[in-house]
Amino acid sequence: MALVEPTACQVDIAAGTMSGATGTYRKRLADLAGLYADQAAFAAAIEAGGDAIVYDVADFRPSARSGDLIFGLTRMSPGRIGDEFYMTRGHIHAVADRPEIYYGQSGRGLMLMESPVGETRVVEMTAQTICYVPPFWIHRSVNTGASDFVMVFSYPADAGQDYGIIEKSNGMRHRVMAGGPKGWQLVENQDYRGRSAAAIAGLMST
Amino acid sequence: MALVEPTACQVDIAAGTMSGATGTYRKRLADLAGLYADQAAFAAAIEAGGDAIVYDVADFRPSARSGDLIFGLTRMSPGRIGDEFYMTRGHIHAVADRPEIYYGQSGRGLMLMESPVGETRVVEMTAQTICYVPPFWIHRSVNTGASDFVMVFSYPADAGQDYGIIEKSNGMRHRVMAGGPKGWQLVENQDYRGRSAAAIAGLMST
Repeated sequence: MALVEPTACQVDIAAGTMSGATGTYRKRLADLAGLYADQAAFAAAIEAGGDAIVYDVADFRPSARSGDLIFGLTRMSPGRIGDEFYMTRGHIHAVADRPEIYYGQSGRGLMLMESPVGETRVVEMTAQTICYVPPFWIHRSVNTGASDFVMVFSYPADAGQDYGIIEKSNGMRHRVMAGGPKGWQLVENQDYRGRSAAAIAGLMST
Repeated sequence: MALVEPTACQVDIAAGTMSGATGTYRKRLADLAGLYADQAAFAAAIEAGGDAIVYDVADFRPSARSGDLIFGLTRMSPGRIGDEFYMTRGHIHAVADRPEIYYGQSGRGLMLMESPVGETRVVEMTAQTICYVPPFWIHRSVNTGASDFVMVFSYPADAGQDYGIIEKSNGMRHRVMAGGPKGWQLVENQDYRGRSAAAIAGLMST
């Protein structure tokens, strides 16, 4: 069995990039249709701003083998749709008991987490905050600041992503909106539909 | 099954600390007897300097479960024993096919890696360098700079550490010594004893 060669990647925090990535992807507003509460503001933003970049991801995936690790960088633009801050699509791991670690590099944001039964947790992140997202938590990043929100992340290589879980419940239970003493506040998502006992049991058995 | 609650830790790069750690340990020179080539210089350093701190580690270990992740911070002091730079004890993972990720935060150093058959690889690290240590590589960190060398790390929770592998071969194959155009150079460890075919096969089968 041939060994894998060691690798070095260099993060540029100001640019929000990572050299040596094996893959990158970019999400523009139009890729995120349906995520935001204010559909008129969303349509207006698309109309006015062309098709703004909401976030970029660069990652290094040595393998998909159980026991291996993937790592990378997320750069999120600042912005809002109406009062709702720019956010990532969000996911639970396809192997739902896999955790993830996020390490804030610049800017200001939140890790918004939801348990299968619908409990919400928030970790406020700025430079040098490490957030441990434990097994079974749905998670999404939100840029609540006025500048790029940049994070390094790492997760088990066999975790995978299930993005559909959030669509099926019509979004996460809470939205992150401008306002309140901290500049952001959680607001109940009126369209949210809780998971059935069978769906929860299915998630927890992975 | 109860969910684990999300956690936030805060890294202080200048102090070389991480809040919220579940464990810490500290290695002083006296803990590292036998690592350095120049035994007279080592004895003199112990005599003269009391018992200097070589490195501190703070980590967060949510569990030891397969598929979970451990993360933490290493702060290494600058220093040398004779011409040999301060280094960590070094290890291979007890489950040898588990990788590790190191992310440079400040200072300057190396990730010194050795394959079971005795090949050496070096990754130079400074702030914002991410080093991926692939499965099966023995690894040790070396502070080649004049200030603290600080890194964040992450590895699979079931990896474990086998420190004995380096002792059994009388150290790693190369030592990192002051000198050369870069300020550091690899020097063959005269005491190094290569691994047997059986030992290599044993490592590679884990």
